[in-house]
Amino acid sequence: MYLEKFDLDLRYGENSHEKAEVFGKPAFGILHEGKQLSYNNILDAEAAYVIANNLKKLKGYASVVVKHQTPCGASIKNDKIESILSAIAADEESSFGGILAVNFEFDEECAMAIKKKYLEVVVAESFTQKAIELLSKKKVRILKINDYEPKVGKPAFGAFLVGERKLPDLKFTHVAGPQLDVEELNELLFAFIVVEGVKSNAILISKDLTTVGIGTGQPSRKRAAWIATELAGEKAKNAYAASDAFFPFPDGLEILAKAGVKAVVSPMGSIRDEEVINAAEKMGLSFYKAEGRVFRH
Amino acid sequence: MYLEKFDLDLRYGENSHEKAEVFGKPAFGILHEGKQLSYNNILDAEAAYVIANNLKKLKGYASVVVKHQTPCGASIKNDKIESILSAIAADEESSFGGILAVNFEFDEECAMAIKKKYLEVVVAESFTQKAIELLSKKKVRILKINDYEPKVGKPAFGAFLVGERKLPDLKFTHVAGPQLDVEELNELLFAFIVVEGVKSNAILISKDLTTVGIGTGQPSRKRAAWIATELAGEKAKNAYAASDAFFPFPDGLEILAKAGVKAVVSPMGSIRDEEVINAAEKMGLSFYKAEGRVFRH
Repeated sequence: MYLEKFDLDLRYGENSHEKAEVFGKPAFGILHEGKQLSYNNILDAEAAYVIANNLKKLKGYASVVVKHQTPCGASIKNDKIESILSAIAADEESSFGGILAVNFEFDEECAMAIKKKYLEVVVAESFTQKAIELLSKKKVRILKINDYEPKVGKPAFGAFLVGERKLPDLKFTHVAGPQLDVEELNELLFAFIVVEGVKSNAILISKDLTTVGIGTGQPSRKRAAWIATELAGEKAKNAYAASDAFFPFPDGLEILAKAGVKAVVSPMGSIRDEEVINAAEKMGLSFYKAEGRVFRH
Repeated sequence: MYLEKFDLDLRYGENSHEKAEVFGKPAFGILHEGKQLSYNNILDAEAAYVIANNLKKLKGYASVVVKHQTPCGASIKNDKIESILSAIAADEESSFGGILAVNFEFDEECAMAIKKKYLEVVVAESFTQKAIELLSKKKVRILKINDYEPKVGKPAFGAFLVGERKLPDLKFTHVAGPQLDVEELNELLFAFIVVEGVKSNAILISKDLTTVGIGTGQPSRKRAAWIATELAGEKAKNAYAASDAFFPFPDGLEILAKAGVKAVVSPMGSIRDEEVINAAEKMGLSFYKAEGRVFRH
C-alpha cells in the first residue's frame, strides 16, 4: 500500500499540540476553505457524508449533522429545506458547530435556511454557484464529494488496520410482535441505515424519518438504550429503534419498550436470542432481525 | 508512506460481512492466539495499552480495561492483583468480554486472579512463562508489546489522515476554588491521563486512583458530565474529574459539583472561560487548567 503525501495543510491534528497529514488522494474538492480545515473537520465530514450517501437507498432528501464523528441528527423529508432544518433540530444543542452533509444538490434556498445556524462545514456532491457564494460569505467551509469507496481503519501498535465499510443486505426478518406495514418498515430501515454510522454500542430511536434519540459510544447496550430513551423523552412513544448489534440480554429491549418504542430492528447472534425474542413478544414489541452487525468505532 | 501487507489473517473486519487487513509491522508478538484475533480485538488492545503505558508517568501498577476502543475501567494500586481487580470492578458489567492491558510484568498470580473473569485479550510488555501457560489454557489471547510510537488516524474520502498522539505537558495551573495538595493533584493527573484515551466528548470521574464514572462518546460536554455522574452515583462524592476539552458553558461543571465532585481539571479556551471559572469559584470547586486538549475519537 503506497500512499503519497497529499498537498493539504491541516490546521493541526486531533488536538492543537499534535500534527497531522493527509496521504493518498481524497475524493473531495474544497470549494471554499476560509479557516484552514482541521483533521477533525475532515473526519466529521466523512462520518456525515457516508450516512447521507447510504440514505440514497430510501426516497426523499436526506440531511445528517455530525459532531465528533458520530451523527447527532439525521432526517429524510420530501423538501430539501425541511430535511436540513429537521436534522439540525433533532439535537439543536449538539448541532451547534457541527458538520452538515446532504445527499442532494445544495442550492441558494438551502444556504439561506442555515444562515443563522452555526455549522463548520457543509458537504454535498453538488452545490449551485449561488449557494457557494452565500456559504462563503458566512465563512462556512464547503466540501464537494466525488464518488469513492468508504473504508474503516486505524493505526495500531505502529501498523495500520484497514477494513471494508459496507451495509449488510437490507433485508429485515420478522421475529416477534405485530408485523409492520411497508411505511413502518421504511422507518425501521431509516433507523438502521443511520445507526450504521453511530459509534458503538449504539441505539438509535427515530420517528417521521428523523432521529429523536441517539445513544452512542457506550461500553454496554443497556446503557446505549438508556441514553437514547432519556434523550428522546416523550418522542420515544410509538417510535422506531435500531441497534447496531444484538441484545445480549432482554434489558436493553425492555428499556426501549418501557419508553414506548413500537418497533425494533437488531442483528441476532446472542446466546440469549430466544430469551430476547420472547421478551419482545411478551411486551408486544415489533421485533425484526437485520442481516448483519453494523459496529462503527 | 509505503506500508507492506503484514502476514496476519484477521477473523473479519469491524463486522463479520467486512474484511480487514494489517499493513506495516505491528509492534506486538502474539504469545497465544487461540481464536483468531479480530480487527476490533487489536484496536481495543491498542486503546488499552496506550493508556496503561501513559500511566507509567505515575507511581504504582496500572491496569486498564477497554470495550469498543474506550476504557470502561482503569486503576493504579501498589499491588498488581489489586490493580487488575480494581480496574475490572470499576465497571464490572462493561468489563465482561473486554480487553485488559497492564503496565507491569503479568505473572502467575495475575493470571490466577482473572481466572474467573471473561476477558478476550491480555496485553502487557512482559509475561512470565507460567502466566502464558495459565492464560493459554483459559483461551485468553496474549499480546506482548514492544516499544513503538502511537498514532491516530482514519481513512476519509478514499485517503488516509494520520496524526500524532501525545499528551500535552502535564502541568496543571490552579484557576479557582481551594488548592489541592500533592496527593490530590496526583488523583487529578490520573483522571486526566485516562481521559486522554476516552472517546470525546469525555468526562471522567475517579477516586483512589480508580475510575468511578466515565462519560464517553457524547456530542455535548454537558451530556458527558451527566453520564459520568449517573454512573458514579454516590462515588462521585469527594471524587476528582477530568474533562478532555474546555467547558463551553458552566452547565457541565455544575452537574459535576452537584454530584459532589471535589476537583476538576480541564483545558481552557472557551469564550466563556471566565464565566466557567467564576462558577467553579462560587461552588467551591477546585478547578485546574490543563495545558492542552486531549480529544480522542
